[in-house]
Amino acid sequence: MVQTNEKATHLSDNIYSLKVPTDLRKVGLNPNFWYPLAQAKDVKIEKPYAVSFAGNPIVLIRTKSNQLFALENRCAHRQVPLSMGIVCGNTIQCTYHAWQYNQTGKVTKVPYLPQGCSLPKGVKSYPCQEAYGHIFVFPGIPELAETVAFPEIQNWSNSNYKTMYFSRQVNCHYSFLKENLMDMNHQFLHRRFMGKVKPTLVENSKGDNWVEAKYKFSGEPHLSANLVLAPGRKETSELATSDFDIMTIRTEYPYQILRVCPSGSDLPFLDLWVSYIPIDREQKRNHSFGMLMIRQPKIPGLIHLLWPLMRYFTGVIFAEDKMIVEAEQTAYNLQGGDWNQEVFPVLLDVRELLTKKGVPIS
Amino acid sequence: MVQTNEKATHLSDNIYSLKVPTDLRKVGLNPNFWYPLAQAKDVKIEKPYAVSFAGNPIVLIRTKSNQLFALENRCAHRQVPLSMGIVCGNTIQCTYHAWQYNQTGKVTKVPYLPQGCSLPKGVKSYPCQEAYGHIFVFPGIPELAETVAFPEIQNWSNSNYKTMYFSRQVNCHYSFLKENLMDMNHQFLHRRFMGKVKPTLVENSKGDNWVEAKYKFSGEPHLSANLVLAPGRKETSELATSDFDIMTIRTEYPYQILRVCPSGSDLPFLDLWVSYIPIDREQKRNHSFGMLMIRQPKIPGLIHLLWPLMRYFTGVIFAEDKMIVEAEQTAYNLQGGDWNQEVFPVLLDVRELLTKKGVPIS
Amino acid sequence: MVQTNEKATHLSDNIYSLKVPTDLRKVGLNPNFWYPLAQAKDVKIEKPYAVSFAGNPIVLIRTKSNQLFALENRCAHRQVPLSMGIVCGNTIQCTYHAWQYNQTGKVTKVPYLPQGCSLPKGVKSYPCQEAYGHIFVFPGIPELAETVAFPEIQNWSNSNYKTMYFSRQVNCHYSFLKENLMDMNHQFLHRRFMGKVKPTLVENSKGDNWVEAKYKFSGEPHLSANLVLAPGRKETSELATSDFDIMTIRTEYPYQILRVCPSGSDLPFLDLWVSYIPIDREQKRNHSFGMLMIRQPKIPGLIHLLWPLMRYFTGVIFAEDKMIVEAEQTAYNLQGGDWNQEVFPVLLDVRELLTKKGVPIS
Repeated sequence: MVQTNEKATHLSDNIYSLKVPTDLRKVGLNPNFWYPLAQAKDVKIEKPYAVSFAGNPIVLIRTKSNQLFALENRCAHRQVPLSMGIVCGNTIQCTYHAWQYNQTGKVTKVPYLPQGCSLPKGVKSYPCQEAYGHIFVFPGIPELAETVAFPEIQNWSNSNYKTMYFSRQVNCHYSFLKENLMDMNHQFLHRRFMGKVKPTLVENSKGDNWVEAKYKFSGEPHLSANLVLAPGRKETSELATSDFDIMTIRTEYPYQILRVCPSGSDLPFLDLWVSYIPIDREQKRNHSFGMLMIRQPKIPGLIHLLWPLMRYFTGVIFAEDKMIVEAEQTAYNLQGGDWNQEVFPVLLDVRELLTKKGVPIS
Repeated sequence: MVQTNEKATHLSDNIYSLKVPTDLRKVGLNPNFWYPLAQAKDVKIEKPYAVSFAGNPIVLIRTKSNQLFALENRCAHRQVPLSMGIVCGNTIQCTYHAWQYNQTGKVTKVPYLPQGCSLPKGVKSYPCQEAYGHIFVFPGIPELAETVAFPEIQNWSNSNYKTMYFSRQVNCHYSFLKENLMDMNHQFLHRRFMGKVKPTLVENSKGDNWVEAKYKFSGEPHLSANLVLAPGRKETSELATSDFDIMTIRTEYPYQILRVCPSGSDLPFLDLWVSYIPIDREQKRNHSFGMLMIRQPKIPGLIHLLWPLMRYFTGVIFAEDKMIVEAEQTAYNLQGGDWNQEVFPVLLDVRELLTKKGVPIS
Repeated sequence: MVQTNEKATHLSDNIYSLKVPTDLRKVGLNPNFWYPLAQAKDVKIEKPYAVSFAGNPIVLIRTKSNQLFALENRCAHRQVPLSMGIVCGNTIQCTYHAWQYNQTGKVTKVPYLPQGCSLPKGVKSYPCQEAYGHIFVFPGIPELAETVAFPEIQNWSNSNYKTMYFSRQVNCHYSFLKENLMDMNHQFLHRRFMGKVKPTLVENSKGDNWVEAKYKFSGEPHLSANLVLAPGRKETSELATSDFDIMTIRTEYPYQILRVCPSGSDLPFLDLWVSYIPIDREQKRNHSFGMLMIRQPKIPGLIHLLWPLMRYFTGVIFAEDKMIVEAEQTAYNLQGGDWNQEVFPVLLDVRELLTKKGVPIS
């Protein structure tokens, strides 16, 4: 068997050189997952809401009776966005010639079509549900929707935590953001606010659909960072054996989770869940949705008092990340290819995972 | 059976391959017609005026003696627009090195060229004439200009009518606008201002170079529409046999005419003539020129009083049409092709006419 | 004889068809020269400064000890611009993961790389020096830098002259500007400020790497032009044999020089040196750097008094040139090729020189 394996290796080496080298920035996000495409609060009753997944226009509709559905965002007739139309009971009517669609995308009425004419074919519909303050859509093969696990976001409904929501367009391929989060050596980028925090990789592991890295955080962050981001740290550190923190970052395709716990504790005082949704067909722009569950300090109401500061602080950090990943995309566009020279093992694993689980960009 | 099937396939393949599949949005407007390229008032004496037909730059020039001519809008020397130059008698001089052109586009002087040198070849000139408040140009083969009928715009010089002029850039292929006008089922788009007007197709016909549709308009338009658009309706309805209106829309390649008469009457109270001029080579933008002849009511001066309201009202209608046809173009660009699923016979005829009479986009 | 002629024609036709037809606007500027890429005053201590040569990003760095160096402006790791980073002694650190580079572009530190790991390969460095108030870089093959003559700018350090600096982006291929300067027949473009000045070509000559043209300037420029541009003319005209001026324009690849002397004198009262740097890979935009050495009049301080007027005046002239060469580029883009129909022998020579000395655009 060993012999066989070795042979296989040699073979695969040969095969490898035959393999077209893959440019990660040309790997599409796999559509066969549940993705947040909008914050729930933005999809108002009878106000069709236009979103996009990798160049596929989708309209989210909330009926008067609070039913949700998601259709291809174009009229089957002349392709104008259905989101320009009007909601009528459980249907949506195109604004142009008033073609009417039901929740499955079937055309149910063309007002001026003579009786007896068969109705034209309609548009695609997408599995869709509201959860965690977002509208989740399954953009892939609808039949798979029920077989694919819906994301579990652990501390979202835990009253010891308060959730901060993020929704922001970032003009880069989603992979740049995934790499950004996994590689904590980029704290240098946030030096103005994070101070001399020095993360050290203490463990990394991987499985078929995930990569995980654990960092020990030593050094002193600026007072601001400490005060603002970790007011509930004390509450999670009772079992802690030392005074430093462990940050665990996990890419579980296609999502990412980041948790910070006092060393020795299992209770995170920060718990982040993020998903990056490609907007355009070329997937050079994405919409980032995130939820940051922040542990509440014991003092009642303190977190609400600190909230505006926390928002500002995380906003600054995110703006720095946005600036740098967009600079990466700009460089990529100029060069016409991915020139990444990666040295960090965690990132090599993430790149392999994203390539393996992704799909070709059509 | 397999054999039979294969035969069948071959047959259909052969038939299929004989038909060149046509994307209407890639059909160019036939240049061998007279087209309005500017409103006459915009082409001022000795102020060269730059226009365009399907990516061909054209400069319109009005001399001090009110003679008009139209040349290719680039200097034969270094291709900068002649419209940046200065008019000098019956010639135009390029602003850069002062090359001089006469009305036929011939170079008549290069100031610094030594005597005896032969003059370089010049630029194209276009047949050109002023009519109906516009400058009309024949952008095609000049020799055909005299053989092609100049448009007749019936009520333009009729003192019972007052003409409202339109001139607006619309960022779509001209065909979207032509379809828009022919298909009155799109009144739904104008529901806010037109109310519950319900057009019904009562007749459609076609010939070699035209398609015509007649609609009966029933239902009550909003008061505003009635008051503003049809103040002279009464004057045209003396012979009318009933109280509804007939709208006749005719595409007579390459122009369009829309007339509204009281049923049974031949006198329109609204008479529209429009022409959509492709601007760029790809013909994804056009300049729409229109004249709306509105029947004057008997009360002297009333039409002038109503004019600003009429302007506002038609402006709103046009803005809605512009919004929707530009949405069609955007969808087309995203999809990379025409996905129109047409069910309305009049439009099928128009699409066939535009395809048949058009030219390839170069 | 007719027969012979015909034969010759056929021969030349054959030869002609063997020659790859060259579009001058697709000829790249030869990088194996010293080029000004920034004004020296803009490159401040420890403030990395981003520039570009034909799509190659370059960062200019001035250390605390006033040493200058130029590197490829992208981190070898993830290609973000090093100009976003921070200067640290004689090194620059990338802002993202703090990779550190020395003056030769070698990576000298990756903070999180375990000891014993070999450092990744770095980035290109460029020969670089400060001179004439500019930072000059050699963007080509570094080994050639020492063998290629550094430009000599004659009157720059002459205290009888005061230097006016230009630095402006112009959105066209550099060749349009080179042609613009060599062909003084374009004074018509500046008619509003230069009045009826009439340049006449009196001599033209060329060598392997240069083309030169001498013009006699007759006619009266507007008073403004005379007063403002030639306050020191008198000081240079003592040996002059007549009262008109000679303008000599020389393209010495890749630079251009323009000098105006009173006829019979060798002392210019205006002495211009210019260089146009392609910015983007397609070389459709350039950054123009210029130095205009203006002869000081005898009256002490007069030139300083006149300076703002001189700045305004040259600014207007330059704006006109910018407008026209950008119009040429726009026409070129629309046409998709160079349709220049040149009749002026000096320009034919310049075009040949630029084509011969240039390089393919990659």
